[in-house]
Amino acid sequence: MDFAVAPKMQDLLGRVRSFVQTELYPLESVFLLEGFERAEPVLREMRHKVREMGLFTPQIEQKYGGLGLSVLEHGLVSAELGKSPVGHYCFNCQAPDSGNMEILIKYGNQEQQEQYLKPLAAGDIRSCFSMTEPDFPGSNPTWMGTTAVKDGSDYVINGKKWFTSSAEGAAFAVVMAVTDPAAPKHLRASQILVPTGTPGFTITAKTPCMGHRGEGWATHCEVSYENCRVPQSNLLGPEGAGFVIAQERLGPGRIHHCMRWIGICERAFDLMCERAIKREVAPDRPLAIQEFVQGWIAESRAEINAARLMVLQAAWTIDQHSAKDARDEISLIKFFVANVMMKVLDRAIQVHGGLGITDYTPLAFWFRNERAGRIYDGPDEVHKIAVAKRILMRYHQELGAAAGA
Amino acid sequence: MDFAVAPKMQDLLGRVRSFVQTELYPLESVFLLEGFERAEPVLREMRHKVREMGLFTPQIEQKYGGLGLSVLEHGLVSAELGKSPVGHYCFNCQAPDSGNMEILIKYGNQEQQEQYLKPLAAGDIRSCFSMTEPDFPGSNPTWMGTTAVKDGSDYVINGKKWFTSSAEGAAFAVVMAVTDPAAPKHLRASQILVPTGTPGFTITAKTPCMGHRGEGWATHCEVSYENCRVPQSNLLGPEGAGFVIAQERLGPGRIHHCMRWIGICERAFDLMCERAIKREVAPDRPLAIQEFVQGWIAESRAEINAARLMVLQAAWTIDQHSAKDARDEISLIKFFVANVMMKVLDRAIQVHGGLGITDYTPLAFWFRNERAGRIYDGPDEVHKIAVAKRILMRYHQELGAAAGA
Amino acid sequence: MDFAVAPKMQDLLGRVRSFVQTELYPLESVFLLEGFERAEPVLREMRHKVREMGLFTPQIEQKYGGLGLSVLEHGLVSAELGKSPVGHYCFNCQAPDSGNMEILIKYGNQEQQEQYLKPLAAGDIRSCFSMTEPDFPGSNPTWMGTTAVKDGSDYVINGKKWFTSSAEGAAFAVVMAVTDPAAPKHLRASQILVPTGTPGFTITAKTPCMGHRGEGWATHCEVSYENCRVPQSNLLGPEGAGFVIAQERLGPGRIHHCMRWIGICERAFDLMCERAIKREVAPDRPLAIQEFVQGWIAESRAEINAARLMVLQAAWTIDQHSAKDARDEISLIKFFVANVMMKVLDRAIQVHGGLGITDYTPLAFWFRNERAGRIYDGPDEVHKIAVAKRILMRYHQELGAAAGA
Amino acid sequence: MDFAVAPKMQDLLGRVRSFVQTELYPLESVFLLEGFERAEPVLREMRHKVREMGLFTPQIEQKYGGLGLSVLEHGLVSAELGKSPVGHYCFNCQAPDSGNMEILIKYGNQEQQEQYLKPLAAGDIRSCFSMTEPDFPGSNPTWMGTTAVKDGSDYVINGKKWFTSSAEGAAFAVVMAVTDPAAPKHLRASQILVPTGTPGFTITAKTPCMGHRGEGWATHCEVSYENCRVPQSNLLGPEGAGFVIAQERLGPGRIHHCMRWIGICERAFDLMCERAIKREVAPDRPLAIQEFVQGWIAESRAEINAARLMVLQAAWTIDQHSAKDARDEISLIKFFVANVMMKVLDRAIQVHGGLGITDYTPLAFWFRNERAGRIYDGPDEVHKIAVAKRILMRYHQELGAAAGA
Repeated sequence: MDFAVAPKMQDLLGRVRSFVQTELYPLESVFLLEGFERAEPVLREMRHKVREMGLFTPQIEQKYGGLGLSVLEHGLVSAELGKSPVGHYCFNCQAPDSGNMEILIKYGNQEQQEQYLKPLAAGDIRSCFSMTEPDFPGSNPTWMGTTAVKDGSDYVINGKKWFTSSAEGAAFAVVMAVTDPAAPKHLRASQILVPTGTPGFTITAKTPCMGHRGEGWATHCEVSYENCRVPQSNLLGPEGAGFVIAQERLGPGRIHHCMRWIGICERAFDLMCERAIKREVAPDRPLAIQEFVQGWIAESRAEINAARLMVLQAAWTIDQHSAKDARDEISLIKFFVANVMMKVLDRAIQVHGGLGITDYTPLAFWFRNERAGRIYDGPDEVHKIAVAKRILMRYHQELGAAAGA
Repeated sequence: MDFAVAPKMQDLLGRVRSFVQTELYPLESVFLLEGFERAEPVLREMRHKVREMGLFTPQIEQKYGGLGLSVLEHGLVSAELGKSPVGHYCFNCQAPDSGNMEILIKYGNQEQQEQYLKPLAAGDIRSCFSMTEPDFPGSNPTWMGTTAVKDGSDYVINGKKWFTSSAEGAAFAVVMAVTDPAAPKHLRASQILVPTGTPGFTITAKTPCMGHRGEGWATHCEVSYENCRVPQSNLLGPEGAGFVIAQERLGPGRIHHCMRWIGICERAFDLMCERAIKREVAPDRPLAIQEFVQGWIAESRAEINAARLMVLQAAWTIDQHSAKDARDEISLIKFFVANVMMKVLDRAIQVHGGLGITDYTPLAFWFRNERAGRIYDGPDEVHKIAVAKRILMRYHQELGAAAGA
Repeated sequence: MDFAVAPKMQDLLGRVRSFVQTELYPLESVFLLEGFERAEPVLREMRHKVREMGLFTPQIEQKYGGLGLSVLEHGLVSAELGKSPVGHYCFNCQAPDSGNMEILIKYGNQEQQEQYLKPLAAGDIRSCFSMTEPDFPGSNPTWMGTTAVKDGSDYVINGKKWFTSSAEGAAFAVVMAVTDPAAPKHLRASQILVPTGTPGFTITAKTPCMGHRGEGWATHCEVSYENCRVPQSNLLGPEGAGFVIAQERLGPGRIHHCMRWIGICERAFDLMCERAIKREVAPDRPLAIQEFVQGWIAESRAEINAARLMVLQAAWTIDQHSAKDARDEISLIKFFVANVMMKVLDRAIQVHGGLGITDYTPLAFWFRNERAGRIYDGPDEVHKIAVAKRILMRYHQELGAAAGA
Repeated sequence: MDFAVAPKMQDLLGRVRSFVQTELYPLESVFLLEGFERAEPVLREMRHKVREMGLFTPQIEQKYGGLGLSVLEHGLVSAELGKSPVGHYCFNCQAPDSGNMEILIKYGNQEQQEQYLKPLAAGDIRSCFSMTEPDFPGSNPTWMGTTAVKDGSDYVINGKKWFTSSAEGAAFAVVMAVTDPAAPKHLRASQILVPTGTPGFTITAKTPCMGHRGEGWATHCEVSYENCRVPQSNLLGPEGAGFVIAQERLGPGRIHHCMRWIGICERAFDLMCERAIKREVAPDRPLAIQEFVQGWIAESRAEINAARLMVLQAAWTIDQHSAKDARDEISLIKFFVANVMMKVLDRAIQVHGGLGITDYTPLAFWFRNERAGRIYDGPDEVHKIAVAKRILMRYHQELGAAAGA
């Protein structure tokens, strides 16, 4: 075992860390106080700078324009980017685009890669992923109402989606729709590429979430598909593979969220410690001398270290073996890290007192917006049940084997 | 001991409950999705209806226009009003006005009551309380920078405040300012009535909190006092009594918050149970059959019952004895109930899944805005330390007495 | 509502409190360090004193030799007795005898009351309750293996029980056995009185629990019933009523445990505060000045107050209405209070440092022995599920009614 | 970074795991039900077997008779041994002997190593460490009452110690005593080797802990030193180095405890999963299908993984750098892992129901005896404060540097 980060990576991480602190921290207030739309011009500038530094879209292979980082390496980078609410966006490895790039790389044919992946990886367009439906549980991806029916050489798509995040301003959506209702439930749906300009594709609402409808990338849209017609060549991967592709997208997607959350934890930890030193509750009595605060700092440090090691080990397992071999680890970090993050944010806010609930720090933004992390891509409970069942199955087999022996 | 609610109160509670559900629940979405300004006309209508029902400003004595409810009785009413984010506002018992009414009743002279209390109790004007300062810890009310210096027959006030909630649109502020810097620290400050139109009184910013700057009543303002001059007759209570009055204001203020939080808990509990029954995770498999959900329901019910009984006992102690005799109880509920509320809200959101983070229910509003309840009027930790010290002092005396015997 | 304890009760509580502190605290060390057998002579003396004070068996009606306290009143007394590990035993209201008295009062015929209840209430004999079986889940009282088959005028009982607590030295057992395997599952079993001298009744082991097999009253016995023959007149209540009687026994039994746990909490709280004052971590630096310790004291005080009020309200509901009406409350306190107790004990131990894990205080005894409180008479989870299902059923009906309206 | 365990170690771990399961699990019941004295003959046999396998005292260098495992390697082995309450004892790496071996290796002169270390490493004798005093806080090792005064060529030791664990049957004690009361507080005390047969060395009591006084190795003794005279050549290391040596002993001692706790967690996890599969709560309804149980399994798995990675990283840091460089990590795992262990044990007990509180599994033994792990070698709170202060100091320096720049 070796817990050392390779020197090459340390160098890269140093560059990223420095950029995030020097360039991104100062512009956060625009994003936090004025919203995505007002921040977009300066974010575009930053994306340009990152591209010039050769660090754009670092998570994908060099032949697609990235740095070809391993999952573990991207995890380390991501933990730096996550320190700022705009970090991933500026490096073009933000959800939902990064997930869409991954499935286009794996399942897209050459034409699809040319048309959709290339501009996405270059940061020229944005995209969205249209799976969850308001009338069906997001935690059960085998049960949905949207259909895609073949008509001539086209699919005709009908249905309602929500939490199609970032749909406003996106060039295309990857839509999950039932193509064969009679098939076994894991084979009913397919993934289809739908340019957002297609007639019948309508953003019916930007769902107000935690107080905001948001703009552009920072939206959660409700989308209506009404006789929305696209050529069958827009099918991504095999027909019926919608569930499988969704899982493959979500697996690494979950670890990507976890990596980002480590960054959030670290920034919250920084802010908490700095505030504890600077804020006096009486002359020459900084918060830092209070045992309550010291307790939170120690507990947070322990939990963040734990979270970080678990995420890196899961990433390492994917790199060395496969995402499937890391299934348990991914489920475990999905709920463990999300909960650590919420606890650390909560403590950091408490240390900040009134300032903690203002938008003068990113803490309040994360507190309200990252709460969703315990829900999307499988709520805590779904992952707990899933991993427990697999573990119990293995004990069951061992006990059976022992009994049979 | 008797845990029964008197029939007269049951009748009153029934009327309030029915009004809140029938009249207020349907208009919450305007408030949640469009904000206070857009909701104000319909809220004004509701205040009118409540006044006609004879239930307006129920917490104050009849001679001031209220119902003369005891603290315990108001606690019961408040737990009904708290079920809606606009409940207290519609009944004119919302912070910060209710606290200002209380100190005007106790410390205001006849003229001050005529000029400020009367229209406030009638719901014709709003007010604010200007104590916390950005450069000094809110948790230490003996340390502040704002001063009021006598000049002729006036006070000249200078300083910076923030979290002067509801200042936008308020007719007057109660300002806490140092009148005698050389006095012992608990006698340095005084409370002064300042009409918001007074030259030198400026709202310099509406602090963005949890994503919003808000409007009108729903603001947290930063206020600059710059040579702000008011007659010395605007002094509320004796000079040097600022700290004492603040404590007297905050004591019941804390219990009022707790009562309101019980209402929030109950509504969140209702929403959680209803969602658990209605939402299916697979055909004919509602969330209600999941043990995780059942566990949250049982734990929430236990904690809300606990919180409710503790709040009512504290109110009863104030009624039967005094606020001072209930000091421990008030400190205990301040942190206990606030934490129960956050836990219940968190669970209710989790049961709602994606819907929980939208503003289609009041859960997300409360989740982000009531987090402040663990900070204002004394953070959790300040209350824990205060109550523990008093308890330990009593044991110390007992041990000393035993040792001396 | 009225939270005041009646003067008459205050007087009684004062006498009990004083007795427990003066007489029982000093003899705890014998019980804690030497065990029940060595402590029994002095405990017998104490029981004699309590009888002379007229406070023996206070929980039952005067005609059976008790004080006829209401459930609420007994709750208050019990919270005093619980402060000492030997309190209830010395007042003859200890489990399992108190529960057996209750069902003998309710279901015993005159002859049974004469033979079993009378000496039990007088403290002349002890008894046990034989329900749980090692091969069947204690949490499911409708599924058991022990049978009682009619043969002539007798029942012939066969089966294996464990956690027949206090069987060693008991004069009789109340045994739950299947009398009609073909009946609906809640009507299969009956309760039968079995003198422990009956041939076929054998204590096969004293189960080692938390390090001890114990002696006499302080045992958890494994009992074998092997062709154990008793007259059918030993049937307690109607045949097939075993489940119903068990539930009636356990309902109040649960509240009795909760009342006792409040006493444990209060004693642990006393010990924690006293230790915090007396123990210095450096010269003139007592533990009491540490915020961690202050936090535990405040949190414990809040939780104990919460637990106490909930238990008293449940008791009041039983007194005013019925045990059935208090079903939810009883389930809620069963898990809530048990968990509060374990938390308070844990904190008190931590404040004591090394001393906390020794048997020089009762904390370590309670820490290991009261852990069972979260398991017996229905584990936490069983109560959570039960109460949640009843709550959800009520919401379901309301929603149905609303939908139908 | 590399999370793989080297093949050589995997082989060793496999042998240890197999031995523990095959040889040690079956004899646990003797130890758990009858105590150390009764188990000692069979434990002696096992120690013989381990010696023959070449695995005895694996943690020390080969020249002293061990395997020369690195800290990380010993951590992996220790996590296997910890699965059984007698694992470490059988491999001769149990506290307090392992710690005494370490300081004898580092500070013992040749004669001392010959006389004390050699037989200790060979498992021929046992030893104890005599530091904590009943009248002084164990958490403050600079404040103690025991003195060692020079008289001729001897030290004359006077004082009272407790928690001198394993003193019964030990051949010698390492005693910490004040040799220069006038020195700065970290230089006042020294470590002295005292054969237990020395006149004036008396075990005055075996402290009853969690219900037991124990025997032999399994004791916590109170020791009186009354004019206890040993030659000055028994001084271990330099005079005045008592505090430093104690810290050096406790640092790795803490990580050794953590490693052992991981083993306890894993065994508890095994038992929990196996019980969940085997125990039915109704016909064909095993506990394993309950979501509550699944939740505990998933949470435990996450927390154990976290704990394990953190412990291994701390060990790795010691190996690669030094114990001093791992100070933060050691403090963090000391409280984090101890708390994880208690949580996992608690859940495992709950899954076992009544069986969980019996001594038919090791769970109840660990539940009561490992509670001390949150107290000894620095209570949770002492480590939290220590690590937080170091972290805050670093932020303080950064902020100062930034301000100065």
